[in-house]
Amino acid sequence: MSANISQAQGLGQGAEQENLSESALQQHRSHYPALNPPAKRAYFNYGGQGVMCEAALNAIAQGFQQIEAIGCFSIAAFQWIEAEKVAVRQAIATELQVSPNTITLTDSTTTGCNIALWSVDWQRGDRLLLSDCEHPGIIAIAAQLQTRFGIEINYFPLQQTLNDRDEAVLEAIEQALQPRTRTIAISHICWNTGQVLPLKEIGQLCRDRQVLVVVDAAQSVGVLPLNLAELGIDFYAFTGHKWWCAPLGLGGLYVAPEAFAAAQPTFIGWRSIVSGKSSENRSLPKNYDWRADGQKFEVASAAYPLYAGLRAAIAHANLWGTQQQRYDRIGQLSDRLWHKLAEIPQIDCIKQAPPKVGLVSFKMQDKASNLVMKQLEVEHQILIRSIPEPDCLRVSLHYLTTETEIDQLVSVLAKF
Amino acid sequence: MSANISQAQGLGQGAEQENLSESALQQHRSHYPALNPPAKRAYFNYGGQGVMCEAALNAIAQGFQQIEAIGCFSIAAFQWIEAEKVAVRQAIATELQVSPNTITLTDSTTTGCNIALWSVDWQRGDRLLLSDCEHPGIIAIAAQLQTRFGIEINYFPLQQTLNDRDEAVLEAIEQALQPRTRTIAISHICWNTGQVLPLKEIGQLCRDRQVLVVVDAAQSVGVLPLNLAELGIDFYAFTGHKWWCAPLGLGGLYVAPEAFAAAQPTFIGWRSIVSGKSSENRSLPKNYDWRADGQKFEVASAAYPLYAGLRAAIAHANLWGTQQQRYDRIGQLSDRLWHKLAEIPQIDCIKQAPPKVGLVSFKMQDKASNLVMKQLEVEHQILIRSIPEPDCLRVSLHYLTTETEIDQLVSVLAKF
Repeated sequence: MSANISQAQGLGQGAEQENLSESALQQHRSHYPALNPPAKRAYFNYGGQGVMCEAALNAIAQGFQQIEAIGCFSIAAFQWIEAEKVAVRQAIATELQVSPNTITLTDSTTTGCNIALWSVDWQRGDRLLLSDCEHPGIIAIAAQLQTRFGIEINYFPLQQTLNDRDEAVLEAIEQALQPRTRTIAISHICWNTGQVLPLKEIGQLCRDRQVLVVVDAAQSVGVLPLNLAELGIDFYAFTGHKWWCAPLGLGGLYVAPEAFAAAQPTFIGWRSIVSGKSSENRSLPKNYDWRADGQKFEVASAAYPLYAGLRAAIAHANLWGTQQQRYDRIGQLSDRLWHKLAEIPQIDCIKQAPPKVGLVSFKMQDKASNLVMKQLEVEHQILIRSIPEPDCLRVSLHYLTTETEIDQLVSVLAKF
Repeated sequence: MSANISQAQGLGQGAEQENLSESALQQHRSHYPALNPPAKRAYFNYGGQGVMCEAALNAIAQGFQQIEAIGCFSIAAFQWIEAEKVAVRQAIATELQVSPNTITLTDSTTTGCNIALWSVDWQRGDRLLLSDCEHPGIIAIAAQLQTRFGIEINYFPLQQTLNDRDEAVLEAIEQALQPRTRTIAISHICWNTGQVLPLKEIGQLCRDRQVLVVVDAAQSVGVLPLNLAELGIDFYAFTGHKWWCAPLGLGGLYVAPEAFAAAQPTFIGWRSIVSGKSSENRSLPKNYDWRADGQKFEVASAAYPLYAGLRAAIAHANLWGTQQQRYDRIGQLSDRLWHKLAEIPQIDCIKQAPPKVGLVSFKMQDKASNLVMKQLEVEHQILIRSIPEPDCLRVSLHYLTTETEIDQLVSVLAKF
C-alpha cells in the first residue's frame, strides 16, 4: 500500500500501520459472529455469501422495530422509508463512484441481470453473446430470451484464455461478435475460475460496435476498487450479501446514463412510476410517467430494513481500510494461498499464476470435488465450495481472512 | 360464528368464548408493538401494511443470527434454508388450501402480478382486460406489455357496479370480453372501494371463454377464508405484509396446476432450474430443466429469515381464531363503523350498504382527502389513508381492531 493512499485517507503512517495490524484485524473480526463461533471454523465462502457484522445484524432488527414504532403505514413511516432509500442508494453510489440516480435497488445480482437482459428491445434474429464461464442462472435467462423473442445465443471461449494476457480475451470477443449481436453478457470476475476481465477495453470495443455490455458483478463488488463511470459499460449487476458482507436479499444494478432512456423496464409497479407528470406513454395511468432514475426498474414494497444493514456493512468495512487497502490485502492472501497450494503434489491450481483477486480455484487429483467440500466442512469446519464447470474447488479470500485460516486449510489439504 | 366451526377446531363453547373475549383480544394485541406505542395511536392501515407481532420480529432477527451461527454459505446453512423454504411454502399453502407445489415465493403482490401477466405468450393484437379499479402499479404493467408486445388494453366499468349485485359485475365482464381477449386482471377485493368480486363465477365465465384470470389478492389474503383450489382462477398474487401482519418484502403467487405448464417464466435464475434432468429446452444449461413447481418463477438468493417471520405471523393470528372467526369479527367491526359513519352528516360512505370486508371508504364533504389523512395522523395519531380514484379516505379494519379505536375515529371525524 502506498503512502499516497493513506495520506489521501487522512491517516498518518503510524495510524495506518496500527489500523492494518494483525491485532487490529483480530479486533475488527471480533464483530462478526460467524467468524467467532463456539467451535473452531475457517470461512472461505465469501464468493457465495459474506459474514455479517453485529452492526449490520442490529440495523436490520432495529429497522423492523422502528417501522412498528413509527406506525407502519403512516406519513412518518413513509418519510423514514424514503430517507432509507436515499441513504442506501447514496452509500452504494459512493462505493462505485457513480451518481445515486444510476442505481436500481434489487434483491440479487441475478435480478439485476434479468432487468438488464430483458431491457433490450429484442427482435427476432438478434444475437446475445455470452462467455462460456457464466453462471447457470444467467444462461437460463438467455435461454428464455431465445424462447420468447427468437434471438440467437452465442458463446465465446473465455475459459481457455485464463492464463493468457487480456488481449486474448478481447480477440475472443471480437471474433465472436456478429452483425446482429446487440448485447454481450459477461462477468467482471468469473465465479468459477476467478479470471478478471479487462472491462474497460471490452467496453470500448463494444461501444464501437454498438453492442450493449451487461456485467455480472457478483464477484467484483466489494473486491475491486471500482469506478464504474470510467469503465464505459452499460449495466453492472451486483449483490450486497457476498463480498460486502451485507444481508441476503439486497443487491443493485447500475445503469449507465447513456443506456438509461432506451432500457425498457420489465417487472414494474408503483415504485417505477411517479405521479404529477404527463407521460408520452399514453397507456400509463393518467398523470403518471416512468421515474427518471434507477427506480424506473424497481417494483413495489420491499424489506426496507435491509437497506440500513447494507449501509452498516459497508461502513464497517471502511472502518478497517479503504477499498484499495482491502483489495491489496486480498491480493496478498491470494498470493500466499496460491503458492502454498502449488507446493502440494496432489493439487493443481486452475490458474498458472497467483491470482490478484480472492477466488482461488484448484483441483484435487483423484478426488470428487463435492466430497472434498463435504469432508472439509464436516470433519474440520473448513468452509469452501465445489464448482461444477470446470470441476474444481473454490476458496474465497476476503480481507477478513487470516493467514492462520489459510495455513489451517493448507495443512488439512496437504494430508488428503 | 356457528358452533360447527368451533367444533371443527376442537374448541368447546366455553373455550371459544374465552378465546374471543375482549380481554383475550387485549392480551393478544399486547404482543404487537405498533398497537402499544408510548403515546395513544389508533391504527387503520392494514390494507397498506399490517402490524408485526413480537414473535415475527424475533423470528427475523433470530433467522439472520442463525445463518451466521451455522456458517453462512455451508452445507448446514443450505439445509436450513431449504427447510425454511419448504416450511413457509407449506404454511402459505395451508392457509390457501392448495398444494405447496402451486406456490411461488415473491417479494410483493406486484411482483406476483408481473410474473403472471408476463407469463402469457402474448401475440400482437391480443387483448388484456382490466377493471377500472386496479392499482396504478398493475396498470403500469399492462402499459408496458402493450409497448413490448403490441397488445391492446381494455377496461371494464367495475366501479359503477359497487352497489349492484354480483350479476352486474359478471355482465360488465361478459360485455367487455372480445375474441382476442386472452387474460383478465382483476382484484379479489378492490383496494379503493373494498368491493368483493365474485371470483368463482368470474373464473367459470373466463374458463368457458379460455381467458386466463390473474387476481391481485393484496386485500383478500388474510381477510377472506380462502380455498383457492375451488375458485377456479389461474393466478392469485398476494403479500404477507398487509392483512397477514408479516414482514415487508415477502409475498407469493399461486399458479393453478392447469395454468402451470403454459406459463412462461420471465425473471429467472438458479432457483428456477434444477440440475440432473435433461430438458426439452435445449438452450438451458446442460443437464438443467425448469423446476416442476412454483420455484420455476423464483430467481435467486433472498432474505430467507423473512420466511420464519411470515410463519410466525400466521401462527400468531391462528392463536386468536380461525380464518372464519377473524373474518366474522372484521365483518362485525365494518358493520359498526359503516353505520356510525352513515350518521355523520358531512360524511358520504362509498358503499351504500355495510361492507363485509375490512375496507371502509368514504368522502368528507368539502375536505381534501389527503389533508384529512394528515390532520388525523399529526393531531390525533389516527392512521387511515387517502385514495386518489375515487377521491376518498379508506379505513382498514382488522380482527385486531377494537371497538374503542373505531369509536375514537368516529368521534374525531364527527367534529371535523
